[in-house]
Amino acid sequence: MWLVTLLLICLWLQLSQISNAGVTSKYIRKQYASIDMPTHYFPSPQAFNAPEQVHITQGDHDGRSMIISWVTPLHSDSNTVTYWEATGRHAHKHKARAVTTTYRYYNYTSGYIHHATIRKLKYDTRYIYEVGKHKATRRFSFNTPPKVGPDVPYTFGVIGDLGQTYDSNQTLEHYVSNRKAQAVLYAGDLSYADDHPFHDNTRWDIWGRFVEKSCAFQPWIWTPGNHEIDYAPEIEENTPFRPFTHRYHVPYKASKSTSPLWYSIKRASAYIIVLSSYSAFGKYTPQYIWLEQELPKINRGETPWVIVLVHSPMYSSNNYHYMEGEGMRVMFEHWFVKYKVDLVFSGHVHSYERSERISNVQYNITNGLSTPIRDASAPVYITIGDGGNIEGLADSYTDPQPSYSAFREASFGHGILELKNRSHAFYSWHRNQDDESTIGDSTWFYNRYWYPHEEPTSII
Amino acid sequence: MWLVTLLLICLWLQLSQISNAGVTSKYIRKQYASIDMPTHYFPSPQAFNAPEQVHITQGDHDGRSMIISWVTPLHSDSNTVTYWEATGRHAHKHKARAVTTTYRYYNYTSGYIHHATIRKLKYDTRYIYEVGKHKATRRFSFNTPPKVGPDVPYTFGVIGDLGQTYDSNQTLEHYVSNRKAQAVLYAGDLSYADDHPFHDNTRWDIWGRFVEKSCAFQPWIWTPGNHEIDYAPEIEENTPFRPFTHRYHVPYKASKSTSPLWYSIKRASAYIIVLSSYSAFGKYTPQYIWLEQELPKINRGETPWVIVLVHSPMYSSNNYHYMEGEGMRVMFEHWFVKYKVDLVFSGHVHSYERSERISNVQYNITNGLSTPIRDASAPVYITIGDGGNIEGLADSYTDPQPSYSAFREASFGHGILELKNRSHAFYSWHRNQDDESTIGDSTWFYNRYWYPHEEPTSII
Repeated sequence: MWLVTLLLICLWLQLSQISNAGVTSKYIRKQYASIDMPTHYFPSPQAFNAPEQVHITQGDHDGRSMIISWVTPLHSDSNTVTYWEATGRHAHKHKARAVTTTYRYYNYTSGYIHHATIRKLKYDTRYIYEVGKHKATRRFSFNTPPKVGPDVPYTFGVIGDLGQTYDSNQTLEHYVSNRKAQAVLYAGDLSYADDHPFHDNTRWDIWGRFVEKSCAFQPWIWTPGNHEIDYAPEIEENTPFRPFTHRYHVPYKASKSTSPLWYSIKRASAYIIVLSSYSAFGKYTPQYIWLEQELPKINRGETPWVIVLVHSPMYSSNNYHYMEGEGMRVMFEHWFVKYKVDLVFSGHVHSYERSERISNVQYNITNGLSTPIRDASAPVYITIGDGGNIEGLADSYTDPQPSYSAFREASFGHGILELKNRSHAFYSWHRNQDDESTIGDSTWFYNRYWYPHEEPTSII
Repeated sequence: MWLVTLLLICLWLQLSQISNAGVTSKYIRKQYASIDMPTHYFPSPQAFNAPEQVHITQGDHDGRSMIISWVTPLHSDSNTVTYWEATGRHAHKHKARAVTTTYRYYNYTSGYIHHATIRKLKYDTRYIYEVGKHKATRRFSFNTPPKVGPDVPYTFGVIGDLGQTYDSNQTLEHYVSNRKAQAVLYAGDLSYADDHPFHDNTRWDIWGRFVEKSCAFQPWIWTPGNHEIDYAPEIEENTPFRPFTHRYHVPYKASKSTSPLWYSIKRASAYIIVLSSYSAFGKYTPQYIWLEQELPKINRGETPWVIVLVHSPMYSSNNYHYMEGEGMRVMFEHWFVKYKVDLVFSGHVHSYERSERISNVQYNITNGLSTPIRDASAPVYITIGDGGNIEGLADSYTDPQPSYSAFREASFGHGILELKNRSHAFYSWHRNQDDESTIGDSTWFYNRYWYPHEEPTSII
C-alpha cells in the first residue's frame, strides 16, 4: 500500500509541473503586413528652425523636474525652453537652457538635439512650455505628478516595441484616446530604425515626430531595448546605444546610476526601476552593483508599488525570443522575490502575456529544483511588446501553455495600470481589435508589501 | 511487482544525480596570511627614464606579431622598440614606434605607457628587443611560435588570480622554473590594486614589475577579471576597465572584435577565445554577436584545440562565488557543446578544480532537465584562480562533491597544458607545496574534434 502511495505522490509531482490553468486567448488577429508609415505622414514643421520631436520625461528622482527635449535644424537661438504654471493670469515665466548635442551615424547627421531640465516644479500642477523662437514657437503642456506618497492614485500607460507602422499608429491612437493615463512606462524598442538599411537614422526622426502627440504632453519613462543598441561594426558603428542616448535623456544620476541605461524614479505611489538587458549584469558590474544597492533603499511606506521595466522578458511562453532573458533572470530574480517587486514589464516579444506570481530561484545545480512555482513574494511578469512594429506579431506559442503563464494572446495593444492606493491596482490590457480598442485582459493586482494575498484570476 | 520496479527506477534516477566519483584532495595547505609583498621588493630601474613593467602579448591573429609594452616616467625619447633576430651576427635591426597613453585615476597619474606592435616576424624564431635609451636601455628576448598547424606541439602555462603576495611570488617562481611553457593563458585578475584604498594604482605598477621576469620574455594572453573593472563611483571612477585597458593591449581587432575585453588568437595548434564575464553578453550585444560569428569560423583542421578563457567559472563546486557564472553559462554553454570546445579555463575562485566533461543545456523551463550530465561534446572546465592573491584561499567546498566535479583542492599553484598533436594533450596542475612545486593533478585530454573518446581519470 505504501508503495502505491509513494508512486502516486511521485506521479503527482511530475504532473503538477505541467498542470495548466492559463488562458491562451481565442481571439485571432487578422494579419496584415506590418510596414512602416511613409515618411511624408510626419513632416517637419514648416517654420524656420522649428523645434520638432518634442518629448518629455521625468527629470529627477521625486517628480519635481522634467527633462524637455526637442530637435532643431540649426543650433542658433533654439536652446531655451520657457515655462509657466497654467493657472493664474500673470504666471511668472521661467526659462531653462538646454544642453545640446548632435551625432553622426554612418551617412547620417542628426539635427541639434536639445535637453533642458526644468526643476523645482510644484506637484500636481499644470505647466505650459514653449520651445522655438518667433514664428517657429511651439507650445505644449504637462501635469506634474502628485507628491510621492503611499496612497496617491496614479495611472500609467504601458507600451512596448511601438515602432512606426500602421499598427503602431493604431496603438498610439488608442492610447491617446484613453484619457486616464498620466505617464507611459515604455518597455523598450522605439523606432526600429535599425531594421532599415544602414540603420537609417531618419527613422529615429520620424518616430520622434510620430509620438510627439503623447510624448510632448506627458512623460514617457524610457527603457533601452535591443533596437536601441544600433551596433553595426560593418559600417564602423561600434559603440552601442549612440542614437538612443543622444536623443533620449533620463535622470539616471538622480538615482546614483552611472549609466542612462539603468536608473530609477519615484512617481506618485510607484517606485520604477529601469534595467538594461543589453548591458553587463554579472556580479561586480555597474548595473549589478547599482541594483543590489537600489532595492534595499525602497521605502514601501512611501512608494508601495515596485515596478521593474526591462526589455527582454524573464518569463514568456512565446516561441519568439524564448529564454533570451534567462541570463538576467538567474542573476536578478532572487532579488525581485526578496524585495517583493510587484510587477515586471517587458517588451521584446511582439505579443501580450501575463504570468502567474511565480519564482524559479531554488536551483543550485545539483538539486534539480528548476521549475517555476507559485510564490506570493514574486512579481507578475507582463510581456507587452505588442506596440505594433515593422517586425510583425509573434504568434507562435509553446504548447501546452506552461503553468507560469496566466494569459497570452498574439495581438497588438497597450496596457493601463491604475494604482488606486497602497494595496490595490487595477490593470487592463487593451487589444487593437481592428479599429477599436477592446479590453482583452484585466485583473486586480494586490500590493506585495501591504496586501500580499492571492489575486483573482483574469476578470475578462 | 511492477510498482516496486517503478519505484526503484524512480529512486535510482534521484540517486544517480548525486552519485559522486570525484576527488576532493586530502592535501591540506598550511594557511598563512596572504599579504602583498612590500613596495620596495620591486623598485623601478635606477637609470634616467628607464623603461619598466615590460610585457609582451601576441599582436595579431596568427602569431607573427607581438605587442611590446613598457612604462616610462617621461614621454620624451622613449617610444620606440628595437628588435632583431637572435641568430646571425649581423642581424638587421628593426624599429617600431609605440602608441603612448597615460591615465589618471583618482589621486594617481600613471607613467607613460607605450605599446608597440612589431609585425611580420618569422615563425619559430628567437628575437631580441630593446626598449629605453642610452644607459637606461633594457634588453629582452622572446620566441615566436611555430606556424599555425594541426599537429604543432606547443606548451601553455595557465595562471589566474595571481596578485602580488608571497604566495603569488611562489607561484610565479614555480612557473618560471618550469622551462617547458612557451606562453601563458592568463585567466584574469592581475594586480588586485582595487583591494587597496582608492584602488591604489601604484599596485598596478608594482605588479607590472613583479611579473616582468616572465611577461617580458613570453607572451601572456590576457583575460579581464573582476579586479580589472576598477569601477568606483564613490571616487568618481565610473568607466569600467580603465587601468587595465590602458596598461594591457591585446590584438582584438585582428579577430574582428570591437572591444579589448573579448577576442581570439591562433597559436600553434590552439585557437584561444577570450571572453569577458563583466561585459554584456545578452543576445544582440557586441560580445554575443562576436562569439556567435567566431565559433563557426574555427577550422579544426588548422587549429584542433579550442580553448576558452573566461574569468568567472561556469562550473565550480566551491562555496565562494558559487553560481556567479550562471548568467553566462545559460547564454553560451550550448555553443561550447555545439562547437566542441575542448577546454574552458577560469579563475575567480581561489583554488583549483577540474570538471568532468559535462553539459547542462537541455533545460527549457518546463522540462525539469537541469542537472549536468556527461557529454562527450562538452569541454572540461578548469578553475585555476589559485595564483595566490591577497584575498587568500577559497577552501570551502559544497558537500558532497557533485558529480560534475572530477578533482578539487584548495591550494595555490599553476597549470601546464602540453598540446602534443591534434588528438592528445597532457595537462598537469602544479601545487605550491610550501617551497616546492608538486604535481597535484594531471590527465590526458583528447581532442573533441579529432579523437572524442573518453579520457582516463586523473593519473595522479
